[in-house]
Amino acid sequence: MTVLYPNRKRSNFNHVNEDKSKIGNTYSNRGMSLEDDLNLTNLYYLSNGIANIHKKPTPIQIVKVDYPKRSAAVIREAYFKQPSTTDYNGIYKEKYIDFEAKETNNKSSFPLQNFHSHQIKHMQSVIKHGGIAFVILKFSMYNEIYFLKASDILAFWDRQENGGKKSISKAEVEQVGILIKTSYPDFVPYLKCIDELYQL
Amino acid sequence: MTVLYPNRKRSNFNHVNEDKSKIGNTYSNRGMSLEDDLNLTNLYYLSNGIANIHKKPTPIQIVKVDYPKRSAAVIREAYFKQPSTTDYNGIYKEKYIDFEAKETNNKSSFPLQNFHSHQIKHMQSVIKHGGIAFVILKFSMYNEIYFLKASDILAFWDRQENGGKKSISKAEVEQVGILIKTSYPDFVPYLKCIDELYQL
Repeated sequence: MTVLYPNRKRSNFNHVNEDKSKIGNTYSNRGMSLEDDLNLTNLYYLSNGIANIHKKPTPIQIVKVDYPKRSAAVIREAYFKQPSTTDYNGIYKEKYIDFEAKETNNKSSFPLQNFHSHQIKHMQSVIKHGGIAFVILKFSMYNEIYFLKASDILAFWDRQENGGKKSISKAEVEQVGILIKTSYPDFVPYLKCIDELYQL
Repeated sequence: MTVLYPNRKRSNFNHVNEDKSKIGNTYSNRGMSLEDDLNLTNLYYLSNGIANIHKKPTPIQIVKVDYPKRSAAVIREAYFKQPSTTDYNGIYKEKYIDFEAKETNNKSSFPLQNFHSHQIKHMQSVIKHGGIAFVILKFSMYNEIYFLKASDILAFWDRQENGGKKSISKAEVEQVGILIKTSYPDFVPYLKCIDELYQL
């Protein structure tokens, strides 16, 4: 099967919809994804001098490149690679910021298999070095977005490692997380949670 | 012209040699590049719990993807995009670290056209938000690697913007930069310069 990527009206936002899991979905048939919203949020933060936070490009293993001329090299064979870190990082009020964004269609829980062990290790490392690590979690069915500290995610991960539940229930997310109220023009104003939690 | 990427003995290091400028070069015919050395340095820092600093993947605009089965999607048409930030970032001793690595074959100067205006803007923004921004510059002909604070690069950039020289002379690099002595096992121990400059 061959999938052509649809033209993007928002082509000025880098990396939008490059995620393997989103191939074949367009804005028109799925609405704004969490990633799209976060890109707009980060653009708002950047252009207003509030923070400098970016999504990292999707890692690709390139195998074959054609180039009729150097300025127009075409990649003809490449593969998606698993990222070795979380997707977003940057700086806010002198602090190193690092997070992962996840979306689920589940109604009652968030499956921990959405995290890879290297992402868990990465979050542990960021905390150890004094950075602010967290996860932004969207329950698509309710259109609810939560901010969860990495330390809470790590506790749920440890519970699983010790034979416990393989998911975080929605009730638990509501208990430990902060519901982010989406707004305009800052879309998903997650830095407000950091201000609140870390008193910045 | 079609170029097949050579097999990489060091395939465990992400993003090595994905740079467009390096297509067709192999380790055997060009020696270790600055990027290779920095990947080894960062791996050393990461695995020894010293810092968590990564190179960002090369941004790619994906146009067409084939997938006979979901687990083996093949990108069949994609293009290199210009990065909107610098190549490396991460955390060290609670500080946000951000830098660009550049290599030149020039003997007497480093041409400023190696920087894009958005990289310059990015460095200005990082400084404004309280991060540590710098450039690692290699004069390949001398096998010399220098650490230059972003503020110095920005001063040379401003000189150019005001009608001055379009390059930084090697003498100027020697004057404002710190020569990094390569070693083993930490390869290009650039964090020592940060310790020295910022008294961390």
